[in-house]
Amino acid sequence: MKNLTMEDLSAFCNQYGFIFKGSEIYGGLANTWDYGPYGTRLKNNIKDAWRYYFIQNRDNSYELDSDILMNPTVWEASGHLAGFSDPLLDCKSCKTRHRADNLINEFTTEVNADSMTQEEMIHYIREKQIPCPKCGKSDFTDIRQFNLMFATNRGVTKESASTIYLRPENAQGEYVNFLNVLRSMRTRLPFGIGQIGKAFRNEITPGNFTFRTIEFEQMEYQTFCKKGEDEGLYEYFKDYGIGFFEFLGIQREHLRHHDHEKLAHYAKAACDIESLFPFGWGEINGTHNRTDFDLKRHEEYSGKVLEYFDEETKERYIPFIIESTYGLDRIVLALLFETLEEEELEKGDTRQVLKLPAFLAPIKINILPLIKKRHGEKALELYNCLKRKYMVSYDDAGTIGKRYRRGDVIGTPYAVTIDDDTLENGTVTIRQRDTMEQVKLPVLELEHYFSDKFTIHMS
Amino acid sequence: MKNLTMEDLSAFCNQYGFIFKGSEIYGGLANTWDYGPYGTRLKNNIKDAWRYYFIQNRDNSYELDSDILMNPTVWEASGHLAGFSDPLLDCKSCKTRHRADNLINEFTTEVNADSMTQEEMIHYIREKQIPCPKCGKSDFTDIRQFNLMFATNRGVTKESASTIYLRPENAQGEYVNFLNVLRSMRTRLPFGIGQIGKAFRNEITPGNFTFRTIEFEQMEYQTFCKKGEDEGLYEYFKDYGIGFFEFLGIQREHLRHHDHEKLAHYAKAACDIESLFPFGWGEINGTHNRTDFDLKRHEEYSGKVLEYFDEETKERYIPFIIESTYGLDRIVLALLFETLEEEELEKGDTRQVLKLPAFLAPIKINILPLIKKRHGEKALELYNCLKRKYMVSYDDAGTIGKRYRRGDVIGTPYAVTIDDDTLENGTVTIRQRDTMEQVKLPVLELEHYFSDKFTIHMS
Repeated sequence: MKNLTMEDLSAFCNQYGFIFKGSEIYGGLANTWDYGPYGTRLKNNIKDAWRYYFIQNRDNSYELDSDILMNPTVWEASGHLAGFSDPLLDCKSCKTRHRADNLINEFTTEVNADSMTQEEMIHYIREKQIPCPKCGKSDFTDIRQFNLMFATNRGVTKESASTIYLRPENAQGEYVNFLNVLRSMRTRLPFGIGQIGKAFRNEITPGNFTFRTIEFEQMEYQTFCKKGEDEGLYEYFKDYGIGFFEFLGIQREHLRHHDHEKLAHYAKAACDIESLFPFGWGEINGTHNRTDFDLKRHEEYSGKVLEYFDEETKERYIPFIIESTYGLDRIVLALLFETLEEEELEKGDTRQVLKLPAFLAPIKINILPLIKKRHGEKALELYNCLKRKYMVSYDDAGTIGKRYRRGDVIGTPYAVTIDDDTLENGTVTIRQRDTMEQVKLPVLELEHYFSDKFTIHMS
Repeated sequence: MKNLTMEDLSAFCNQYGFIFKGSEIYGGLANTWDYGPYGTRLKNNIKDAWRYYFIQNRDNSYELDSDILMNPTVWEASGHLAGFSDPLLDCKSCKTRHRADNLINEFTTEVNADSMTQEEMIHYIREKQIPCPKCGKSDFTDIRQFNLMFATNRGVTKESASTIYLRPENAQGEYVNFLNVLRSMRTRLPFGIGQIGKAFRNEITPGNFTFRTIEFEQMEYQTFCKKGEDEGLYEYFKDYGIGFFEFLGIQREHLRHHDHEKLAHYAKAACDIESLFPFGWGEINGTHNRTDFDLKRHEEYSGKVLEYFDEETKERYIPFIIESTYGLDRIVLALLFETLEEEELEKGDTRQVLKLPAFLAPIKINILPLIKKRHGEKALELYNCLKRKYMVSYDDAGTIGKRYRRGDVIGTPYAVTIDDDTLENGTVTIRQRDTMEQVKLPVLELEHYFSDKFTIHMS
């Protein structure tokens, strides 16, 4: 929606039961959010759409659900223990803490901190006398690297405890199960392992509502392939991601590719898909050519052979991996921005309407007795019948116009009104959310009318 | 399945891609497990069935998805910080650690440690000279209480850090959002909030495959009601739970209620539903009358008024809560035990078959070309068509009998074979998993034949 700020959307989500502040009655826990009933259903529907698009409709494609807690050596092998950190420094004057790279990048476009070493950054900050964003002075400590993984202790006493971590990404769960999936699915390269699950990052400067949080949900898809097929698959998944977002109802012009110049240690090529948010373009997907880095490292650290035997060429080799990863919370956000509209109606009236594709809508049909006393019984009968098949709601409070609006604002695609005609000749009025057009139909034809309206389709 | 041990089932799950040992290539992380492709789909299908049974088909019933990380005061209010601990002691001789209550309960049926204080337990252990299960000596340290919550630090430095916890249960997420749901859903008592999500417990003596793990998934349902309605609802949910398990396909004689005599500090009444496992009866559900304990405590600790205004009686009061909670991992386990069978066939042949209800089966239809070279093309055409609608598999390797078995053992309800008849007159052979009966049908009638076979139905 035009001119909608992140604050507006956050207020909208709170008011209509999409997203609440986490632990709100206790003043919250910074950068945690709880999904309310409509947000939860929207999220579930996106997960189902992802499963449909990435697992069900692809060959040799398998979903995994690995634990958040893993053997800590996994994070040595992945490089997270050594390298997954932020460069932080403190303002000596006001004691606030900042990310050195952010200080520089927000101060100037002359240089890019992303390609600077720690020494170059502190040198630049001091040379340019970059001020503290809080107090304005420029007197900082040295930079220290802080690991972003949440650590906890397995075992119940200090002596018996070993440090384990909340996973900062799901990917390693797919990698360490590469052989298990290969074997048990009797599959061959190229094949894919996808996973939906939570990951955690102990960041100090998150923000922007649910765009950056310390606990978030990823939908990841890793394709294991032969070296040489990797570059083609990398390009393929860059486009497949765009296709997925369009399938969810995000317009092409609100999406763009952003190729990375600076690459992570594991990647040969990396590209984000960004969507347009109120604060500008923001990453909602990442595609990475991770080469054979990950499996080689796991082979080295675990001592297990992670090779693939190629029946055709009789070769043994470690597969390459193309990663295509999706931020579920950010997709929810992008979809809300994409589909929430304020429309002018007749007589200066306006309405807020959430134009979600029907298969993503939290509630599919809103059942409305025109007059509660006269039509309530019949309406409840219909509600009780339809709820066996669909997520439906029942609303008998207030004028019919108000009730239409309440369905519109949470994205309910259809309203079915029960009135005198229903009692007399068995017809109901179906009102469509976006066009507000109404059609009269016999109750008996409702099942057929709705039969393919909410099904996930892929063209 | 008769005579099936936990070890057998664990091996089965590993072999056929249901459940793998967590971080296996690193020697595992004790009591963590990763769900493979078929286990993940089975789990997803159970979640969908739960949503259907508890959310979609109930009035005033709302799903929530709250964060695992919560404001730490939540756990003061809930009582977990003070009381969620195990009484542990060490054997001075062999240095192994044990739970005092388990030592006593495994040693004797004369007393029940569950109703003993810490002092009574250590006194009894020393008086009876209960031996260490490991070394046989009886020389123990005093008992110490160890909290079962995993702790971690929010913030990136020791100085700035505050201790937060991985939730040991989902319920508190529902309780702290009581007002948010009440307001945004415009609902009234009694209403329910359900949630599916992970919880974590740092236990030292878990085991029994996935029956007791440090990371597990719960499906919880909390009903908020007026005092006085609580006892009726408590009985109602005891039966509703049985109904849910029967709906999933667990026979009534493999289920039983187990009323608790010793009650947790928050409960007025508590009852488990147990299912029959190889080790005996094990809890797969708990129903608790939590009274107004939780909301009162959250009111006290948060300083926020958590009252409900009753429009009818014009009273304000704190609602009672009836909790009905389901262990998802244990339900997966119970269903596998319930439905895995070894059948004698003709000529001394046997087959393993997983008789899951069709709506829970990981793969719905297995597409088989009778002869790969001659029928492969037609079979792939059908596969590509059906996968738009269902989770299907394609298998062209080995004899048709072997391929039937491969579908049977993972619970695929239908196999569709493409043969010369398909090429000649467009008919295929459908083979049913349980009866092994075969019918011939025109390809064009497949859509109709399967149309309601996998839908979740509620009688």
